[in-house]
Amino acid sequence: MTVYNFSAGPAVLPKPVLEQAQKEMLDYRGSGMSVMELSHRSSEFEEIINAAELRLRDLMAIPDNYRVLFLQGGASLQFSMVPLNLTQKKKKAYYIVAGSWGKKAYTEAVKLAKTIDFQPELLASSEATVFNHIPTIEAASIDPEAAYVHLTTNNTIEGTAIYDLPDTNGVPIVADMSSNILAVRYQVSDFGLIYAGAQKNIGPAGVTIVIVRDDLLNDSPVLSAMLDYRIQAENGSLYNTPPTYGIYIARLVFDYVASLGGVDKMEEKNVEKANLLYEFIDQSDFYRNPVSVKGDRSICNIPFVTPSDELDQLFNKEALAHGFKNIKGHRSVGGMRASIYNAFPLEGVQDLLAFMKEFEERNKG
Amino acid sequence: MTVYNFSAGPAVLPKPVLEQAQKEMLDYRGSGMSVMELSHRSSEFEEIINAAELRLRDLMAIPDNYRVLFLQGGASLQFSMVPLNLTQKKKKAYYIVAGSWGKKAYTEAVKLAKTIDFQPELLASSEATVFNHIPTIEAASIDPEAAYVHLTTNNTIEGTAIYDLPDTNGVPIVADMSSNILAVRYQVSDFGLIYAGAQKNIGPAGVTIVIVRDDLLNDSPVLSAMLDYRIQAENGSLYNTPPTYGIYIARLVFDYVASLGGVDKMEEKNVEKANLLYEFIDQSDFYRNPVSVKGDRSICNIPFVTPSDELDQLFNKEALAHGFKNIKGHRSVGGMRASIYNAFPLEGVQDLLAFMKEFEERNKG
Repeated sequence: MTVYNFSAGPAVLPKPVLEQAQKEMLDYRGSGMSVMELSHRSSEFEEIINAAELRLRDLMAIPDNYRVLFLQGGASLQFSMVPLNLTQKKKKAYYIVAGSWGKKAYTEAVKLAKTIDFQPELLASSEATVFNHIPTIEAASIDPEAAYVHLTTNNTIEGTAIYDLPDTNGVPIVADMSSNILAVRYQVSDFGLIYAGAQKNIGPAGVTIVIVRDDLLNDSPVLSAMLDYRIQAENGSLYNTPPTYGIYIARLVFDYVASLGGVDKMEEKNVEKANLLYEFIDQSDFYRNPVSVKGDRSICNIPFVTPSDELDQLFNKEALAHGFKNIKGHRSVGGMRASIYNAFPLEGVQDLLAFMKEFEERNKG
Repeated sequence: MTVYNFSAGPAVLPKPVLEQAQKEMLDYRGSGMSVMELSHRSSEFEEIINAAELRLRDLMAIPDNYRVLFLQGGASLQFSMVPLNLTQKKKKAYYIVAGSWGKKAYTEAVKLAKTIDFQPELLASSEATVFNHIPTIEAASIDPEAAYVHLTTNNTIEGTAIYDLPDTNGVPIVADMSSNILAVRYQVSDFGLIYAGAQKNIGPAGVTIVIVRDDLLNDSPVLSAMLDYRIQAENGSLYNTPPTYGIYIARLVFDYVASLGGVDKMEEKNVEKANLLYEFIDQSDFYRNPVSVKGDRSICNIPFVTPSDELDQLFNKEALAHGFKNIKGHRSVGGMRASIYNAFPLEGVQDLLAFMKEFEERNKG
């Protein structure tokens, strides 16, 4: 049985990357050591982290005035690091909340504001309609002296995405890009800061990418060196021991994406995969995608439901038996969710469609 | 040429562990997925993290009233997390500074105390003598109402260790055990909290172990959920996506250590390896170990020097050509350092000794 892994993250990785990691596990390129055993100060690891950064810069066309950091703690730690570092001079920060993770980012900011001096403000939210669309904002309502406007480019749980960035009245956009980095083409220069957990489109969990515009780096130390963008930047992500093996896998993934034609090619393939599913769901009277605005649909995470909770449960049970793993929707929303990131193969989507058709035939009223 | 990796961390890992990881890289035990691709909410990963915790509890004889957490950010992030969480009620915290890392822990505490309300105090320091011994303390000088006394059980850079814990007048000891966890037998019940970066005796960089006594967990939320011991404990280290692959390797290492006879056996072997080196250095007029008190010597990190900086440089150059990698001393102290953790083989120490003898013959005055 072919296994297809629809996990929202940690997610499927390119097979050639895993094969190379397997081959090099006991001896990284003649060093006599595993990558896991390399000192982070060794020339071998220096080459790995430098190559990873260069390739990522190339893939995302990152301008020279942006720093690339390889950190730990996932997007969740960025929820605190962003305000800790970016509100030293400008004290207001706006949040667009279009999903569960965006809400967590805002909640963490509000909590932090009890200890440090800044004012997080909820700029817009679609929570009242269970995050079924991306809320719109009015540029005129944004104080141009604010530190940043925070948004999530892709809502992993709810299956929505922002493709056209809002006008923020000149205020830098800070984006959680965890679930569609390298899957959708964005212009880095449209952002002040981008962060992403690696475990969806980049590599193993435990690596966090931060791309930050030079002029936004903090001037004064923040309360912990590990949470300090400037210290991390000035130490080339080697302030302490970074997650070396994860950075190595990320480097292999970056090389692989480049070998396939880069982000534009990835986006093209992802649109093709997603459209197969959306077109089928739209013509069906049985399946339904809960996103209310078609233009807000994610091409990475595609939630759908059948006419009843009972049928959703049956679908999930039978899908698992067919080798469709982790297709169950997030525990907070139920139903099903197909996460089809860069490394997810077209054949997996085609096989899922065949199963969905067959399931519909057997179970429609 | 046999390569021996004397790196202080990331360090050598047991070969059987790497071989098993290699074998399972593309298909973890029939799942059809790599461990890197497993959802952290999957039954497969649940089994991994639970088995890792159970085995560690067994190896260290961790009492039931201690929680075991698998976190990110290394010991360096613990420098901030410890005071953030442990000073909610008791406001005073003492630091014993016997090495560069202990000094960093204290410095980070002092920095944090500018933002949150607590008083870090330097209890003792051996910095004036370049950390060449463990400073002694007077129990009577410790306020019994303090939150904790922080110490480092093994000073990686300076090559010293604390084997007999000081009397702290009833105040809980918080220990950075990064460089001798599982290498030396300690009684967990002698500590309030133990933390350790994984990259020396446990697994790949990017995993941090925290062992904390139940009653010391914070009552109120701290400023960031990711830095909150109680949130991490209540979520079984799955508040967000943990470093899954690193935890998997740690589990394999724990199993391997158990298969060899556990921590007591590791300590016995480490003492044997270290004594070979120390005895040779002590009888030599050429080599010198900079630690001034023999009882304070580390069995994990053994620094040594020749009669001159020039000879140190020559030694490092020739050693590298002989396949002795990463034996150069830390950039802050120079000379040489042999880090010989659990996974470092006796043969590597014997080969190094042969080389040291031969080098001495050729270069003595």
